[in-house]
Amino acid sequence: MTEHEIEILLIEDNPDDIELTLHALQRHQLANRVEVVRDGAEALEFLFCVGAYAHRRIDTPPKLVLLDLKLPKVNGLEVLRQLKADPRTRMIPITVLTSSREDHDINESYQLGVNSYIVKPVDFVQFADAVRQLELYWLVINQPPTR
Amino acid sequence: MTEHEIEILLIEDNPDDIELTLHALQRHQLANRVEVVRDGAEALEFLFCVGAYAHRRIDTPPKLVLLDLKLPKVNGLEVLRQLKADPRTRMIPITVLTSSREDHDINESYQLGVNSYIVKPVDFVQFADAVRQLELYWLVINQPPTR
Repeated sequence: MTEHEIEILLIEDNPDDIELTLHALQRHQLANRVEVVRDGAEALEFLFCVGAYAHRRIDTPPKLVLLDLKLPKVNGLEVLRQLKADPRTRMIPITVLTSSREDHDINESYQLGVNSYIVKPVDFVQFADAVRQLELYWLVINQPPTR
Repeated sequence: MTEHEIEILLIEDNPDDIELTLHALQRHQLANRVEVVRDGAEALEFLFCVGAYAHRRIDTPPKLVLLDLKLPKVNGLEVLRQLKADPRTRMIPITVLTSSREDHDINESYQLGVNSYIVKPVDFVQFADAVRQLELYWLVINQPPTR
């Protein structure tokens, strides 16, 4: 890994959830490089390496994308659809991390090819625990794509 | 959950790996219902609810499928391809659990839509740990499809 590669991309617009997630990740200290983008349009630019992120290389994706569903500009399901429809980005592990327990959101995410779907625990401590489990699983246990 | 629903389907032909996986799962005691099938053809019959498994209902899939790649009759990549190509079975979380670290196997699995890819640790204790992490993540943390 070069020093500029990002291990986790957090796509989230809620400032409280961003702070809580980053705090949980920092405590575990597995992910040194976390990038935050706050809307769906910026997420697509980041992962397709265009616009403000044209300097990035599409063959060095994050090991994990954490995707909220209710996002400004482009919603999370549309971000997921575009990423999983393109062979260049289909292999990136994407976990939806959302407050939605709605059947439509859960099942549509799986139909679109999400790797995993996590409902944000309401409790502060449980939320932090879930983030650390996510990090351990996807950064240590899971074998990411090799290109 | 009815008493006949299966939580984990283990698709594996190696008797040692079956024994080790079941032992690790029993110790954690999260998964009470694990089914083992020993070749790719039987795996497809089980998950599509045909042949010897015609009595099963396709709308009550396992919460996790653990899929070896080198299988008799139908290989693991072909099993994965068929499951992810069909809207009825696409939503089932599938983790490849294999000794293969080959780029082709890893990347083809992700292109076909695998949810996660785990290389079997050679060490006995690390293998059991990985199985327990898998079980915790997919049975407790992850939200499975709702139908």
